[in-house]
Amino acid sequence: MRRYTRPMRYDFASDNTAGLAPEAMEALVRANAGFAPSYGGDEITARAADQVRELTQADAEVRFLFSGTAANAIALSMLCRPFEAVVAHEAGHIMADENGAPGFFGHGLGLTRLTGASGKADPAELKVVLDAPETGHRQPPGALSLTQATEYGAVYAAEELRHLIEPTKAKGLGVHLDGARLANAAAAGFDPADVARLGVDILVLGIAKAGGLCVDALVLFDKRLSRRIDNRLKQAGQIASKARFLAAPALGLLESGAWIGHAAHANRMAKRLAERVAATTPFALAHPVDANLVFLRLPGAAHARVMEAGWACHRVDDGSVRFVCSWATTEEAVDALAAALARAAQAA
Amino acid sequence: MRRYTRPMRYDFASDNTAGLAPEAMEALVRANAGFAPSYGGDEITARAADQVRELTQADAEVRFLFSGTAANAIALSMLCRPFEAVVAHEAGHIMADENGAPGFFGHGLGLTRLTGASGKADPAELKVVLDAPETGHRQPPGALSLTQATEYGAVYAAEELRHLIEPTKAKGLGVHLDGARLANAAAAGFDPADVARLGVDILVLGIAKAGGLCVDALVLFDKRLSRRIDNRLKQAGQIASKARFLAAPALGLLESGAWIGHAAHANRMAKRLAERVAATTPFALAHPVDANLVFLRLPGAAHARVMEAGWACHRVDDGSVRFVCSWATTEEAVDALAAALARAAQAA
Amino acid sequence: MRRYTRPMRYDFASDNTAGLAPEAMEALVRANAGFAPSYGGDEITARAADQVRELTQADAEVRFLFSGTAANAIALSMLCRPFEAVVAHEAGHIMADENGAPGFFGHGLGLTRLTGASGKADPAELKVVLDAPETGHRQPPGALSLTQATEYGAVYAAEELRHLIEPTKAKGLGVHLDGARLANAAAAGFDPADVARLGVDILVLGIAKAGGLCVDALVLFDKRLSRRIDNRLKQAGQIASKARFLAAPALGLLESGAWIGHAAHANRMAKRLAERVAATTPFALAHPVDANLVFLRLPGAAHARVMEAGWACHRVDDGSVRFVCSWATTEEAVDALAAALARAAQAA
Amino acid sequence: MRRYTRPMRYDFASDNTAGLAPEAMEALVRANAGFAPSYGGDEITARAADQVRELTQADAEVRFLFSGTAANAIALSMLCRPFEAVVAHEAGHIMADENGAPGFFGHGLGLTRLTGASGKADPAELKVVLDAPETGHRQPPGALSLTQATEYGAVYAAEELRHLIEPTKAKGLGVHLDGARLANAAAAGFDPADVARLGVDILVLGIAKAGGLCVDALVLFDKRLSRRIDNRLKQAGQIASKARFLAAPALGLLESGAWIGHAAHANRMAKRLAERVAATTPFALAHPVDANLVFLRLPGAAHARVMEAGWACHRVDDGSVRFVCSWATTEEAVDALAAALARAAQAA
Repeated sequence: MRRYTRPMRYDFASDNTAGLAPEAMEALVRANAGFAPSYGGDEITARAADQVRELTQADAEVRFLFSGTAANAIALSMLCRPFEAVVAHEAGHIMADENGAPGFFGHGLGLTRLTGASGKADPAELKVVLDAPETGHRQPPGALSLTQATEYGAVYAAEELRHLIEPTKAKGLGVHLDGARLANAAAAGFDPADVARLGVDILVLGIAKAGGLCVDALVLFDKRLSRRIDNRLKQAGQIASKARFLAAPALGLLESGAWIGHAAHANRMAKRLAERVAATTPFALAHPVDANLVFLRLPGAAHARVMEAGWACHRVDDGSVRFVCSWATTEEAVDALAAALARAAQAA
Repeated sequence: MRRYTRPMRYDFASDNTAGLAPEAMEALVRANAGFAPSYGGDEITARAADQVRELTQADAEVRFLFSGTAANAIALSMLCRPFEAVVAHEAGHIMADENGAPGFFGHGLGLTRLTGASGKADPAELKVVLDAPETGHRQPPGALSLTQATEYGAVYAAEELRHLIEPTKAKGLGVHLDGARLANAAAAGFDPADVARLGVDILVLGIAKAGGLCVDALVLFDKRLSRRIDNRLKQAGQIASKARFLAAPALGLLESGAWIGHAAHANRMAKRLAERVAATTPFALAHPVDANLVFLRLPGAAHARVMEAGWACHRVDDGSVRFVCSWATTEEAVDALAAALARAAQAA
Repeated sequence: MRRYTRPMRYDFASDNTAGLAPEAMEALVRANAGFAPSYGGDEITARAADQVRELTQADAEVRFLFSGTAANAIALSMLCRPFEAVVAHEAGHIMADENGAPGFFGHGLGLTRLTGASGKADPAELKVVLDAPETGHRQPPGALSLTQATEYGAVYAAEELRHLIEPTKAKGLGVHLDGARLANAAAAGFDPADVARLGVDILVLGIAKAGGLCVDALVLFDKRLSRRIDNRLKQAGQIASKARFLAAPALGLLESGAWIGHAAHANRMAKRLAERVAATTPFALAHPVDANLVFLRLPGAAHARVMEAGWACHRVDDGSVRFVCSWATTEEAVDALAAALARAAQAA
Repeated sequence: MRRYTRPMRYDFASDNTAGLAPEAMEALVRANAGFAPSYGGDEITARAADQVRELTQADAEVRFLFSGTAANAIALSMLCRPFEAVVAHEAGHIMADENGAPGFFGHGLGLTRLTGASGKADPAELKVVLDAPETGHRQPPGALSLTQATEYGAVYAAEELRHLIEPTKAKGLGVHLDGARLANAAAAGFDPADVARLGVDILVLGIAKAGGLCVDALVLFDKRLSRRIDNRLKQAGQIASKARFLAAPALGLLESGAWIGHAAHANRMAKRLAERVAATTPFALAHPVDANLVFLRLPGAAHARVMEAGWACHRVDDGSVRFVCSWATTEEAVDALAAALARAAQAA
């Protein structure tokens, strides 16, 4: 773990450098009154689950987990057996950023990589994987994992998802959707009700990145998967004793509409940043800005200058530098960062 | 998951039915200002870890995890290999209440049961286990797990722990201490600095039951265990993105002294309950009341009447009924419960 | 691993101290002609699987695995998820002699112990386990594992099995039968066709103890379990490259009838031993001699004398000393052992 | 599993289509006399282990396992923790042909791919992996796995191995050598004593491909790894009850010198095949023929014609078609295959 020795601004370093949005914090404080049943038997948990069902327009089983990493990995362990492989874009969080959590929770399940522009899986590549003859020597596909919005800030159209999900379901395989930034996708026009409609079996619904506490919701559309789900989660260390505090921020965000409202703000800030950069710097966008993420083709020297100016940001796998907007991003910060980028460009 | 259809009082149902203590909540709200590095690189996390080191008077590596179940299971996976067994009292949380989490995180490690009064492991039984000849057919002991205070509310004296830990270390095995209620033990006179002094390798320090959020601290006294600990925790879904919110309640409780102060209150409430019950009912105590737990020998009819009176409480493995006090327990509630118990006795 | 420094006789130490029966060895030698497809695509494997189907009178999927331990553990991992528990008699090989293999292959699945005379599970205890209310904190029953003949040499009647299997299936749980000594049970009158008829989902059919090589057959009566079974086995290290050599001894034993014929001999030898002991020593039988195992209540001094006389034998969990007969046990050896026991008795 | 409907010749399909070499079979038959201690306590096992120590000129702990897949996976689980990754050439058996066994036995350990000509890992790529800065989000390198001879039939010089092993050990990581075809490498001039000398921690010594039964030896040069190794192997289903039959073929091959003698024959047959093909066909060799494998750049039509002529062979990942020689390969078969290849070329 790095310790930071001089003041840096983390406004754009990650979605997770922001705190709780006001609606989340207020709900958390309100939830603190009196005693309540533990382990999820409380009213706040029940109401938050109702909100998730309303959002997704589906009769899903809902649980609030401590981390998206755990939620994703547990979801995959429900859809894919150890001797099978999860098929996913190589940029997916499960592939690149979770230190092998799917294999740990899934007892050795494999990961089969797809590529595709801006983090969207290429349907032609998927077809090759699904149609490959099986042998006893290699993990055959067991499930498909998709990410909406993608790690590169792109938002799938419903039709694009359909072209990935339909052939997968036709093979009898399950589908997982990592919705850590589903709020941003929703704010960009994607209908959350399409998740179940398109045949996703398990959704991990992002609350943390949407302005909540460290909580993501595990949303099981296929009810057969939910048998003894609380035993499964307990064994995995994902049952909260004081469960109301996991559910309350989610409830506050969803009930108030802030879940999508804040994401819309974050998306606007990302667009503003992209526009300023386009107007005042030579740095190209590496990906379209559908959601709250901006990726710039920033030379090393320019990156260093932006860091020296105090703006924490890092280079990602495709070689671009990532800037993330959130509910807490201000126009002033966007403009200040854009100015720093412009100065970095001039200094080159 | 049960849904509760009529108003019940959960004051005594568990340590976890209470909310956050004021010091924890205030620290959480304060932590929400501005942006901060994620994944534990923030100042609040650093300061909270310092507080844990001060409390335990040891140069430990400290991480804040989401659940005691996960913290215990991960600790055991660090001390005991899959083909070995953890030795623990059969009442230990890891044995009886975590749905097999040690085996899941530990890839099939075994559990060898000890007995002993009030949840304290019997040193003679431990000796038998440690001295048993090994065969290739049964999981030999790999680590010892102890609980302070025990699940039956007893507090080990340092000497009692020494008699368990020394022969274990002499065999080259590791020692884990489940300190979910270490605050209550400390309030009852146990010195937290004795944990490292006695040779415990890994402590799980309870924050949740002490008035915090769903957080327990993983405290590694043996630094060799901490290599790549963040990779280990990430893979296990136990790295918090917005880490400051896990650390803040712990910091608030430890820095203010409330961690032990609230536990002292909870212990007093338990003693008060035990005294009232002794004075006004025929129900015997099943265990000495060293900490915040009261176990009563309550016949089925009396238990039912107390429940009907609205007091949630449940029968545990030794056949007694458990009542738990916390930072939030009031004298009024204690007295009202005692009165309900007295009425239940008279109705018999 | 112990090294033996002086000549001992291992005739009665285990079923596995005997070599391959002639029918098995001849088939093995015959199988060595020419080239053959590897990984189970050969004719010998196909024919051996046919023999297993004929024996069990069922259209099962059959695979030949390297060890009963692996076969049992893999079978249980197919029937019981990690957050559930296998229910079995505490004397079962999976419980007592496989060093936690079910938990390793089953990713932490639990083991719930039953007792019962001579290794037969008590139906009343099973009912308690099946009827216990479930909580999210303890592993609920996921499958039942039975052993025929039992580790104490008893043979279940079909009706006895029915009283265990029916309530288990009624709860929707799976049933595994460890048939390491099914040949001995068959020789004692149990019909192998009853295994599938009674509702067992997976049988592990003993070949090694029946005079074969280190091979047991995994027999899947529930075909839904066999999807991608070869991937599962490959990942578990249980696919033989030169598969014909695993199948050949099984084929030799089954095709010739020696599988049951040798078991009948072993059972007769056990009965002869029991009768001699009854006639010439004061040592009581600890269990009825239904199959090929004789358990004697042998005081420590007598046990030592028998060992000194060169007869390897060991004390088991119920305190008795075990003697095992096999296809290779001779009348002379039985009589010599009986004489040694008589001398040990006289010396007392 | 495919069933073969018409007679095919499997001479060149795999190393495993051949049976047991005479020395192996004779030793197996000899081992069948009388009773012997089970689970590895017998003399044959002890003598075979001595032979392995003599071959490798090292005081290693030796165990005979049922499959190379299991031996490799268990070895890796000893060197690399679940949150770390094994670094290996992408053609390695552990990467490409074991259906994820390392992840299963290693509880989710990762696999980091290297490339390099003919299956030899590129030291420059390894350096990049070893020098990459670590983060908490991706599995850092935990061990290096090498294969000698490689899957493409190349044999590393000792110096080449040194350039891979030294920087790995300098980082404190472990080294595993998959020696499924170590006999062929030895016959090609590689000194088996170099394995330990160069710093390999665990060798999997091939017996099956060298003319033995389905057995590979787990050879632990680092004795600290062998603590409770029999418990580890038992739990993994890799302890043989009738252990003498696993050891005997290995003993027969090693004691007689046939282990290397047969490999030398196989290598010569491969060279003969390569020469004939070069002389009579236009098909290029895809890799140098250091050992017993020949890879040809065979167009689809030519491959089909060779198959139609009855010669089982398959296309591998690099697009070439593989032909394998073994102890049982005859000159006649080589010449017949070469003739079939020549006819296939002419027909094009």
